[in-house]
Amino acid sequence: MKPPAVCLLSGGLDSAVCLAWARREGFACYALSFDYGQRHRIELEAAARVAAALGAERHMVARIGLDAFGGSALTAAMPVPKGRSGEEMSTGIPVTYVPARNTIFLSNALAWAEVLESADLVIGVNALDYSGYPDCRPEYIAAFEHMANLATRAGVEGRTRVRIHAPLLHLTKAEIVRLGAALGVPFGLTHSCYDPAPDGRPCGVCDACLLRRKGFEEAGIVDR
Amino acid sequence: MKPPAVCLLSGGLDSAVCLAWARREGFACYALSFDYGQRHRIELEAAARVAAALGAERHMVARIGLDAFGGSALTAAMPVPKGRSGEEMSTGIPVTYVPARNTIFLSNALAWAEVLESADLVIGVNALDYSGYPDCRPEYIAAFEHMANLATRAGVEGRTRVRIHAPLLHLTKAEIVRLGAALGVPFGLTHSCYDPAPDGRPCGVCDACLLRRKGFEEAGIVDR
Repeated sequence: MKPPAVCLLSGGLDSAVCLAWARREGFACYALSFDYGQRHRIELEAAARVAAALGAERHMVARIGLDAFGGSALTAAMPVPKGRSGEEMSTGIPVTYVPARNTIFLSNALAWAEVLESADLVIGVNALDYSGYPDCRPEYIAAFEHMANLATRAGVEGRTRVRIHAPLLHLTKAEIVRLGAALGVPFGLTHSCYDPAPDGRPCGVCDACLLRRKGFEEAGIVDR
Repeated sequence: MKPPAVCLLSGGLDSAVCLAWARREGFACYALSFDYGQRHRIELEAAARVAAALGAERHMVARIGLDAFGGSALTAAMPVPKGRSGEEMSTGIPVTYVPARNTIFLSNALAWAEVLESADLVIGVNALDYSGYPDCRPEYIAAFEHMANLATRAGVEGRTRVRIHAPLLHLTKAEIVRLGAALGVPFGLTHSCYDPAPDGRPCGVCDACLLRRKGFEEAGIVDR
């Protein structure tokens, strides 16, 4: 029987590549998405499509009240930056940073993993393009893993060791696109835009759209 | 101006004592409770009463879908243990343990703290009576604090240092009761029972009820 892994799945490109990666690594994948009041809520439909296409055992959407805290352009009434250069994107912490988001996501994944008796969590964080996000850095992931091993039943009983897999951590966007292509990720089902039109079409000019386009261009692969 | 602190507030005895402690320490207290599908949901009414009585700046109840994961007698259709001896309570991890609960609670507190520009989180964990809960141990709290300092904007920018305050960590229940009495905690407003009657009356025989009664008896203080 395949060991279970909880895979965070946003509906975007990176987490779709992670899910395909986890399947190839031999995990039975439990995909976890969050409805947290994000303005690009349409990504949850993409997540459901991706989970089905990539053969997840289950797909759960957990509702969490992250928007109650505010403080981010992704959940509050603040404008999403548009048309920024690569240099601008890599300077400082962007307003699209959601306070403690990855910590809350991973904590929920840890809860589900404990119930599933899984020791493996998979997250699509990336330290290159998202260098401005504190919770996308390798030292953060290592600290979460250490904490997780003290937080849970399994850790106390010494039965198993929780591992946080971040297979994209050190890849460029072009490398992520190439890995996704090699793993057969259906790119056309994924959604990246922070500020989509009501019908779901990407804006084309937010950081997420710009990074995505650049990644496909550099990889020499068509985004479909 | 008083520095802000996010205080986890369940509506039970311990977190009420923590809130009173934080006020005495000079913090402006932002009380945070969770509606997570707990069967003793009535504790949320107690939390609101306690927050008001102890002068919290705000009281927020965050809805989180913890019950979706299952795995605990507090959220799933599993019986709550009754009439256990102290020895039974301190052996192994009880079925009332909720997977990764404190990690999810603290992660949400961290998000709110970041928005409030607060560096102080207060949690009423206790390593003596809850020795069976992995996420009530000092080494867990230290690991969470370390992770939190890498997870957030403030940690990256080196502006401040997140501290997790757990003032009850090494106290017995009787010592907690005495501290609460000294701080003027309105005990009668708090709720401890895991399995209350529909009108809110405590069952008197679950672990939480038994520990509470023992604590007041040993402290020589009347529970009201």
